[in-house]
Amino acid sequence: MAGRERLLVIGGDAAGMSAASQARRRRGPGDLDITVLERGHFASYSACGIPYYVGGVVDDAEELIARTPAEFRDRGIDLRLCTEATEIDLGGARVRVRDVDGGAETWEPYDQLMIATGAVPTRPELPGADAGGVHGVQVLDDGIGIRRVLEREKPRRAVVVGGGYIGLEMAEAMVTRGLDVAIVDGAEQPMSTLDPDMGALVADAVRGIGVDLHLGDRVEGFETGPDGRVAAVRAGGRTLPADLVILGLGVRPGSDLARAAGIETGPTSGIVTDRRMRTRTERVWAAGDCVETRHLVSGLPVAIALGTHANKQGRVAGINLGGGYATYPGVVGTAVSKICHVEVARTGLNEREAAAAGFDALSVVVESTTRAGYHPGATPMKTKLIAERRSGRLLGGQIVGEENAAKRIDGLAIALWNRMTVEEMTGLDLGYAPPFSPVWDPVLVAARKAAELVEEDMRRSP
Amino acid sequence: MAGRERLLVIGGDAAGMSAASQARRRRGPGDLDITVLERGHFASYSACGIPYYVGGVVDDAEELIARTPAEFRDRGIDLRLCTEATEIDLGGARVRVRDVDGGAETWEPYDQLMIATGAVPTRPELPGADAGGVHGVQVLDDGIGIRRVLEREKPRRAVVVGGGYIGLEMAEAMVTRGLDVAIVDGAEQPMSTLDPDMGALVADAVRGIGVDLHLGDRVEGFETGPDGRVAAVRAGGRTLPADLVILGLGVRPGSDLARAAGIETGPTSGIVTDRRMRTRTERVWAAGDCVETRHLVSGLPVAIALGTHANKQGRVAGINLGGGYATYPGVVGTAVSKICHVEVARTGLNEREAAAAGFDALSVVVESTTRAGYHPGATPMKTKLIAERRSGRLLGGQIVGEENAAKRIDGLAIALWNRMTVEEMTGLDLGYAPPFSPVWDPVLVAARKAAELVEEDMRRSP
Repeated sequence: MAGRERLLVIGGDAAGMSAASQARRRRGPGDLDITVLERGHFASYSACGIPYYVGGVVDDAEELIARTPAEFRDRGIDLRLCTEATEIDLGGARVRVRDVDGGAETWEPYDQLMIATGAVPTRPELPGADAGGVHGVQVLDDGIGIRRVLEREKPRRAVVVGGGYIGLEMAEAMVTRGLDVAIVDGAEQPMSTLDPDMGALVADAVRGIGVDLHLGDRVEGFETGPDGRVAAVRAGGRTLPADLVILGLGVRPGSDLARAAGIETGPTSGIVTDRRMRTRTERVWAAGDCVETRHLVSGLPVAIALGTHANKQGRVAGINLGGGYATYPGVVGTAVSKICHVEVARTGLNEREAAAAGFDALSVVVESTTRAGYHPGATPMKTKLIAERRSGRLLGGQIVGEENAAKRIDGLAIALWNRMTVEEMTGLDLGYAPPFSPVWDPVLVAARKAAELVEEDMRRSP
Repeated sequence: MAGRERLLVIGGDAAGMSAASQARRRRGPGDLDITVLERGHFASYSACGIPYYVGGVVDDAEELIARTPAEFRDRGIDLRLCTEATEIDLGGARVRVRDVDGGAETWEPYDQLMIATGAVPTRPELPGADAGGVHGVQVLDDGIGIRRVLEREKPRRAVVVGGGYIGLEMAEAMVTRGLDVAIVDGAEQPMSTLDPDMGALVADAVRGIGVDLHLGDRVEGFETGPDGRVAAVRAGGRTLPADLVILGLGVRPGSDLARAAGIETGPTSGIVTDRRMRTRTERVWAAGDCVETRHLVSGLPVAIALGTHANKQGRVAGINLGGGYATYPGVVGTAVSKICHVEVARTGLNEREAAAAGFDALSVVVESTTRAGYHPGATPMKTKLIAERRSGRLLGGQIVGEENAAKRIDGLAIALWNRMTVEEMTGLDLGYAPPFSPVWDPVLVAARKAAELVEEDMRRSP
């Protein structure tokens, strides 16, 4: 390598810090200078842990922080907090940087640029959406802000807008804190990444913990009180009083900075990269929630904001930046969540996604138990599989159950990764003992049922 | 099919009843007569549940029975209990049958014969091994007998001979019942299907629940008291007092009946079948603990007595007997177990097995947690992976941890099934949320570490 290079990383969370760490492991400070620009007050934290901090399951925000800035500095990574990148100048190979507190601007040069600018939360463009008391849940600062409000202002009624993973996890956190909680979602079911039949099970569970669930109700606006703070949410013709509003409307790739510089983005609005996490622009890399990746079942580009992807992509970018070779093949769309005692998981394509991707699919739902039926602690769980007609190729799976149900999704995810058919899956040698599974694991029961359906379907229309 | 056929099934547990049920689903009573001969008092029960019945975790032996004889009869399956097959006459296509209680003998003809004679427990050929108070744990009758002794005779001291899965599960059951328990095993570690380093963790856990663990001590004999019942176990020069002895020395395929008839058995002494579960003899099928199967990683024949394999093999045989088409490809050697709070799992080849199968292997052990470190209930777990040098192909995995640790073995089993490399595995899209996993699932952490080791190893010796 000719001379000392400078790696500039924009964004100091999962993707950015993983890239920086991996690059540093392979190239010492004498060979590679690494500077990370992070606009927030924290770096390298678990954004997925925010609902647990808000709900008080996790005591201290510090616990969510994997490594402190000092630890990174000790490893020769110059992590600068409260430092925002405002412009990328590709021609000049430099980034304009603003001190968030002081406002001073400078230009930072780079030899290699890593973009890890994360996701941007969707905010409804509605009157009152920016009022006090309306909170997004995106960065750790948001979580700290919400918890401070909960502890100091003792709000009684919360409305959560959006019934996806974050919305439900935040609703649970508010219930834990003793608030009356309503969820408003424009869809007919919570967790729209599930099929409606499985989503209905989640809806039952959410109502079961006392949440007032308004489905099919689009938010029309936010009413404010005399103090200018939010007082109610208008949705579906109703007015839901609220001392606190949580926005959980999902996110989009935070690719604006890259796009403004002329770096290619794709149909999802995420930055386009190759499997080594290189953008289409020389010397510019990207990873995490700001990029789009390949869905290995549909073959389509997708943007899925999830810490586990960001970490993996960042690691791959860092290995390559460090002179090694690594690739990130894509995702199969796995997600798990827990709402009180109910565990939910999904992977691959749901029925709607399978149809959209051009698959002729069939599906089965089986009810089983998490342990041998006679073993204490056995609880019912439902497993849904979606398979391609004729070939029997597994296309997706969904699980709703209780303790020890959801992580079985990993088996389905690995089966998808390897393009297994449901018929092949019936032979899988999964772990069996009464405290862990019935003699036919729920995954196997579902695979059997799906394989039988594929066979019957072929007989009916050969 | 010309005329009505008769399927005769020898053995009415997992493999036999699965075969009978599947055959019946596809061929009605007018087409296929199905008779099952079972020498015990019970059919279709969970042998794996016996330790939980003995320990009182399961109240009633009936709970272990999946289907009653009456239920089978209602489905047109003539299940005959206490009926022992004593000879197979291949030339005459008939089986000699003895009424276990009455002693009367008859010959039963067959068109198709299904052998599902299970496993035979290893009994030490030592003085006193047949004394009263020395119990095997093979069939439900054994479990019922042991529990009766525990409840009526209130023994104080139990010695378990053999530290495999059954031995440990029975030891836990005895501890639960308040007995002083010792385990004697000739090996240097319990659970010899684990590598010594992982087995040592299990040994610690077993000692932790108060079991007196004697490793490397071969049993030399059993001492009896004046009443002729067992009074002590002699092992490694010591004398361990015992009111009750449990034999958990493993099993071998119960293939004697088949072998005597001239049906081919293999190097494991299990009956040889093809992938459709047909023996090398016309019209004779076999499934379950009495057969040998293929280990999909080593390629070698193995005999693994486990209800989940028996059920799958029986199902495959039954589909084929019913006129359908199904195959059983083999196993990857997955097993899970729980000893009090400690969960143990293994799949594939351990270090010794990998070497014996001709693989040049390396291994890694990583320590991780079952949930995000900051999430309550996160407990430490150790994951070991064994991979082939250079290719990086996964060869096996072992897990020792607490709640929610062991079933992660399924992911490794499916990776093995699909011949994944540890490098490929680093990209796997596994379910992540703080209550379920750290952002890098333990399986991924182990895969990363193994992939790094494979890479370093290649650099050192290119």
